[in-house]
Amino acid sequence: MNKVIASGSTRQLVRGARIFTRDSPADDLFIVLTGWVKLYRVTAGGGEAVIDVIGPGRSIGNSAALEAERYLAHAEAVTPCALLKIPADALLALVDSCPEARAALRANTLSQVQALVGQVEALKMRSGAQRAAQFILSLVPEGSQGSRTVRLPYDKALIAGQVGLSPESLSRAFRRLREQGVRVQRRDVLVNDLGALAAYAEVRELECA
Amino acid sequence: MNKVIASGSTRQLVRGARIFTRDSPADDLFIVLTGWVKLYRVTAGGGEAVIDVIGPGRSIGNSAALEAERYLAHAEAVTPCALLKIPADALLALVDSCPEARAALRANTLSQVQALVGQVEALKMRSGAQRAAQFILSLVPEGSQGSRTVRLPYDKALIAGQVGLSPESLSRAFRRLREQGVRVQRRDVLVNDLGALAAYAEVRELECA
Repeated sequence: MNKVIASGSTRQLVRGARIFTRDSPADDLFIVLTGWVKLYRVTAGGGEAVIDVIGPGRSIGNSAALEAERYLAHAEAVTPCALLKIPADALLALVDSCPEARAALRANTLSQVQALVGQVEALKMRSGAQRAAQFILSLVPEGSQGSRTVRLPYDKALIAGQVGLSPESLSRAFRRLREQGVRVQRRDVLVNDLGALAAYAEVRELECA
Repeated sequence: MNKVIASGSTRQLVRGARIFTRDSPADDLFIVLTGWVKLYRVTAGGGEAVIDVIGPGRSIGNSAALEAERYLAHAEAVTPCALLKIPADALLALVDSCPEARAALRANTLSQVQALVGQVEALKMRSGAQRAAQFILSLVPEGSQGSRTVRLPYDKALIAGQVGLSPESLSRAFRRLREQGVRVQRRDVLVNDLGALAAYAEVRELECA
């Protein structure tokens, strides 16, 4: 694996920089070292569907490692970013020769599939306020308890797209979360009781759709 | 690959049969030979989130081939089914020794990721009527033109769950599609113009959420 990382190159990107487009050949996989990257699609009418927002330690362009001909979505830096660019050819050659690399790639693919399945579940079965709660909880280490202040990592319009709401609906969702002890002040989110918020995000609501 | 298929066993299932549960060890991958299988999650409050409905030629339990410890969702036959059950051990051993098997598994994983990304995009950016149109279009070969009658492969409550609507909202969506030349009569769907319906499914709508 070290060999492949050595064959990679680090790229520093400014906010707004395009990393790849949906239609371009899927030649590289990227590991996000610092910053946040938006994966999105543009619909025929010009609407933008945020597929996911990827932060440090996760990868983008994973379909390159699955031998996709073209990327499945557009990728753009939404904050200043540092990325490690790994040519898919080098990665696949390593995977051919090394069982550990195969296992690592499988684990990476599995976590991508898990994230997508989790999103489909949330979009179908959870209310906007529950999805906003899940987003806040994603910013603290799993299993955290008690009270905590977290900082929103990027702007609210993008958070809205990520959780599948309009910006206005996200504001309403944040207001609804006050009853759950959540207070959003600009980019700071004060959570009174992380355990209670996690329970709320799980509970069944009527008319979630 | 033939060796792995030979190591598999065919199972015939009645409608409603449980294939695996979300929490059970992910020991096998299954190829759907005939019939339809529902992949779903159950939320803490007892709600059911349909992750996908898988038909002939596609596979379920794909996470077993990614060395997941446990399945990501429940799987249940929603019609009588025939499945080919392939032990993940045998599959991974083959993948270790055979580049063609690696390529086949990558292609299979890629199509699963593509389907999930497509769902996230549709849930975030398309109206219920557009998602119902996409579902109808998924029942005819890609690129089909002209008029066509298609038969819904399973009941409307499940179709509703698959496209992320309540049963009532799906009925409304089908009524809205009359303007697009679609007429639903019990399980038969008459489409006047497949090309026009495809264009409608793509177009940007206000207030899709």
